[in-house]
Amino acid sequence: MVGMQQDGAARGPGRPREERVTGAVLTAVVDLVTEQGIGAVTMDAVASRAGVSKPAMYRRWPTKQDLIIAAAESRLGVLSVPDLGDFRAELRLVLTARLEAYRLPGSDRLIAGLIGAAAETGAGRGQYAEYTERITSETRRILERGMARGDVDPDTDVRAATTLVAAPLLFRLIGEQETPDARFVETLVELVARAVGPTG
Amino acid sequence: MVGMQQDGAARGPGRPREERVTGAVLTAVVDLVTEQGIGAVTMDAVASRAGVSKPAMYRRWPTKQDLIIAAAESRLGVLSVPDLGDFRAELRLVLTARLEAYRLPGSDRLIAGLIGAAAETGAGRGQYAEYTERITSETRRILERGMARGDVDPDTDVRAATTLVAAPLLFRLIGEQETPDARFVETLVELVARAVGPTG
Repeated sequence: MVGMQQDGAARGPGRPREERVTGAVLTAVVDLVTEQGIGAVTMDAVASRAGVSKPAMYRRWPTKQDLIIAAAESRLGVLSVPDLGDFRAELRLVLTARLEAYRLPGSDRLIAGLIGAAAETGAGRGQYAEYTERITSETRRILERGMARGDVDPDTDVRAATTLVAAPLLFRLIGEQETPDARFVETLVELVARAVGPTG
Repeated sequence: MVGMQQDGAARGPGRPREERVTGAVLTAVVDLVTEQGIGAVTMDAVASRAGVSKPAMYRRWPTKQDLIIAAAESRLGVLSVPDLGDFRAELRLVLTARLEAYRLPGSDRLIAGLIGAAAETGAGRGQYAEYTERITSETRRILERGMARGDVDPDTDVRAATTLVAAPLLFRLIGEQETPDARFVETLVELVARAVGPTG
């Protein structure tokens, strides 16, 4: 997408071999989830499909939960939106990037599986919340930039508004079980911009 | 809650014995999920804990997915909000009722488990979307009443606005893994009311 970068799992530690391992493993996780569901994701199945050794996997992802979060982050990663001089335009970029990720085959199962798995494992809960915090960080940034610029109400509760931005596309996908579309994004841009816009 | 009713699984077919079975079974499902997670919910475990026969269960809930949705609906059911003459007041009732349900022990695991399970079973997907449709119906109704009354913009996309209302509390609970509070509800009431309020 023009003017925006999405940092995901492709950003490895910089060593080409490690990057190849990371790419193969995360692709294997996404493929397994897409084809068979989250229940098919075991360390054995992923290692076998990716053609890597289990020790190599355990070094980077000690638990299955780490692996699933890394796979999700390879699709829904941290965004970087430049200053476009307009909150609506920046919000549209954020939501469009998420829309594109949600529309990829298997994203619904991957995210729903991550949510289900996070609720089951005590250890995974904090990690998943931290992941959510990371991937919503750019929304906080565009809200703060809008407050400084003047096209976002300076009294806006940034955390609540960030949740208001992040939640609807996800809810449409996994609660209403429908792939969101560009029209829904446009409507959300309008609704959110009015919700946080300057008053008076 | 004053002035509002929540219809859940307590609304049985009217026969007292059936209602007792329903209550015992859905309580057993919620207790199992709260204590051990969704993985512990099997027809055997629920029948044993509820003290009912498996045939009696299968007659009402042919699949595990039916059972989990019914348990979720016993906590998060269809709301009924009277005309209060004010959209904000009605929206506050809806969100407060959801807040109360989300704050009950085990609600996070129950809902996350439902989402995870729905993604795994082809058959459950439609049922879960229908459940979402049912429990968001009252939000559509208060939006339409506000449009007729004049405190909601008549051009509002009711379906998109309904998703905007339903999504943030759920996202706070299962995405940010934090129990929502009354302050967040108040902030959402303000944000949503501005998003859909009359323009000009």
